Amino acid sequence: MVEFSKRVPADGTDAVGVILNSASDPNVISFAGGLPAGELFPIKEMEKATDEAYEKHGEAAMQYGSASGVVELRKQLLKRSEEKENIKAELKNIMMTTGSEQALDLMGKTFINPGDAVLLEEPTYLCAVDVFRSYGAEFVGVEMDDNGMRTDKLEEALKAHPEAKLIYTIPNYQNPSGRTMSLERRKKVAELAAKYDVYVLEDNPYGDIRFAGEEHIPSIKSFDTTDHVVYTSTFSKILAPGFRLGWVIANDYLIKKLTVMKQSADLQTDNLVQYACSAFLKNNDIDAHIKEISKVYSERKDRMVEDIKKYFPKGVQCTNPHGGMFLWVTVPGVEDTVELFKQCLKHNVAFVPGDPFFGTNPVPGTFRLNYSCMPIDKIDEGIQRLGKALQEAIEN
Amino acid sequence: MVEFSKRVPADGTDAVGVILNSASDPNVISFAGGLPAGELFPIKEMEKATDEAYEKHGEAAMQYGSASGVVELRKQLLKRSEEKENIKAELKNIMMTTGSEQALDLMGKTFINPGDAVLLEEPTYLCAVDVFRSYGAEFVGVEMDDNGMRTDKLEEALKAHPEAKLIYTIPNYQNPSGRTMSLERRKKVAELAAKYDVYVLEDNPYGDIRFAGEEHIPSIKSFDTTDHVVYTSTFSKILAPGFRLGWVIANDYLIKKLTVMKQSADLQTDNLVQYACSAFLKNNDIDAHIKEISKVYSERKDRMVEDIKKYFPKGVQCTNPHGGMFLWVTVPGVEDTVELFKQCLKHNVAFVPGDPFFGTNPVPGTFRLNYSCMPIDKIDEGIQRLGKALQEAIEN
Repeated sequence: MVEFSKRVPADGTDAVGVILNSASDPNVISFAGGLPAGELFPIKEMEKATDEAYEKHGEAAMQYGSASGVVELRKQLLKRSEEKENIKAELKNIMMTTGSEQALDLMGKTFINPGDAVLLEEPTYLCAVDVFRSYGAEFVGVEMDDNGMRTDKLEEALKAHPEAKLIYTIPNYQNPSGRTMSLERRKKVAELAAKYDVYVLEDNPYGDIRFAGEEHIPSIKSFDTTDHVVYTSTFSKILAPGFRLGWVIANDYLIKKLTVMKQSADLQTDNLVQYACSAFLKNNDIDAHIKEISKVYSERKDRMVEDIKKYFPKGVQCTNPHGGMFLWVTVPGVEDTVELFKQCLKHNVAFVPGDPFFGTNPVPGTFRLNYSCMPIDKIDEGIQRLGKALQEAIEN
Repeated sequence: MVEFSKRVPADGTDAVGVILNSASDPNVISFAGGLPAGELFPIKEMEKATDEAYEKHGEAAMQYGSASGVVELRKQLLKRSEEKENIKAELKNIMMTTGSEQALDLMGKTFINPGDAVLLEEPTYLCAVDVFRSYGAEFVGVEMDDNGMRTDKLEEALKAHPEAKLIYTIPNYQNPSGRTMSLERRKKVAELAAKYDVYVLEDNPYGDIRFAGEEHIPSIKSFDTTDHVVYTSTFSKILAPGFRLGWVIANDYLIKKLTVMKQSADLQTDNLVQYACSAFLKNNDIDAHIKEISKVYSERKDRMVEDIKKYFPKGVQCTNPHGGMFLWVTVPGVEDTVELFKQCLKHNVAFVPGDPFFGTNPVPGTFRLNYSCMPIDKIDEGIQRLGKALQEAIEN
């Protein structure tokens, strides 16, 4: 048997796959997924935009193109990033990626030698943990509170790991916690990155999904005066995850390197969806669409939090996000979260246990709930089931 | 300055980028590219197929989907692989990739530890050299002749490198040489892979672009009785490279691992183009389209070979491919191929110098010519220019 490389996880570590599978029984109300609400996709408008892409750019859409991506789309995204996130950048600073997942992968590939320290929020996006681990990263967890990553703990970690190259953070409505980093901390993160000469990978898939009345806080990248922040975002949450279309904004020296690394990975990103999304942005009011999504998610989140207060046992805590798709639950006194998952599954309700969201030591009794793709009546029913299951688990 | 990982090539090694750039002057007739003929793309038919994708599968096309790919498309490709390449496989044996480039990347990531030997044809696809090198591969070059990789040399190399994990080959109309591996050698490669317990990565982007009257030789994978051959192909040469849509067929144990590795790389491949290509295959006769492409390429190749015989200095050799997009030129007595490139560029004609196509020792005076995307009159003019430039270079 030909041996796999050291990057390949050992058998049986695809815990998330197993969990998502077991939650796919139609009798189960599953809060385990991470899908945007498919019923809100602007299918007709996208079809029209794609037709325009074929009619105006047919040959270019089907031919090999630039690894950096379609110029027109990159210009539109730069304009949006400046308006929404106060990011000043030029065409040479932006590269399209095959989903923002690829930006994470390319950053891992470009920076991490086996044994290199990566500093990240605990908990954090589980696929980020997977991808950095595949390049041999050693994780240094940084504690969070309701204002996001604690920058005092971040500086301690930077002092303890002067060789660290990368800080990974999701400042807005974080996956999995739903938490948002405060303005002061964003400034501090940018400042610490410069002081300790380390890159920040600012992952912002959820920033636009902001609930009505909530404050908008500009990106960490907007406070970056020393070119230490790498910003990535995506169409996945605001338009269509199926297109796999993301982008990365960074200093031009780094973008050049990432472009070479991208060429080895997949040469370039699908041209058709790049031209189609460019036409969609030109012909439609994407902000109106995002407002519509955010309104629905906000209602679902509100109901979920209400239901949790009503049906969950005393002492169980949850976050109350101002945007995004997820919230985070902590059940005190639980030792084995996967065991808790199994007990809940018997009640036909599912979530993602917290363990894989931690780069270092998982906090037992934590799990992630998704509210974006679940109708209100199912939220009511599912949270009631979950409340019963948790009650039983706590009593035993 | 934050240091890059050891995987990142040093500055100045993007030689190919530099060459392609310098060849982009509109006065230059460039045979350096590797593009299919864009004027032959079935744009209208693809637009129709994409509309059907939106109308029948709109939500699925825009939503997150399976990392393995769209089931309907995978079934169609399995049927085609059986009919065309005599490959027997099931749904669990095929995964869609973001271009076949991603299949190469995932195979590299999954198998290569720094220092591991990879056996490859010399010359070979330059992006394969780049991607395997990025995972720390040590290359063992295997000599070719007009019947492809020499299997006697392959066995010698396997004996000398018993720890090797991977043999990389492009058996049909190879990039860059245009050569095709004989039937006997295909059987032998499958046999040696089993004997020495090593994987063969059979890369077949060009196999369908077969010129009229030329013999079809079944895939190496069709002779694989021990699950040692990994087969990859793509829509890039038969339909649209811009879509970045490829696939890999292998034993299910390996496909499972590759799927986990793909999740870290980009989660999944664009669903829209998967549904669109599935509809295209259903509603159109892709073999008629391929026949049309092949006819045009065949005429261009014939003219290029004629012109070479007419205009190149005596002693200069070239291959005469039975399909595909490239041929390979050897100019005896040249020591510095990049210098030769520069001299030719002064005559406003360009090619890709041979050096980056070699994993080990480049053969000086070799270069690749592309004929697929060049009209006949430009071929006449370009080869005349090149003939003059080579004459001058040989005289000096």
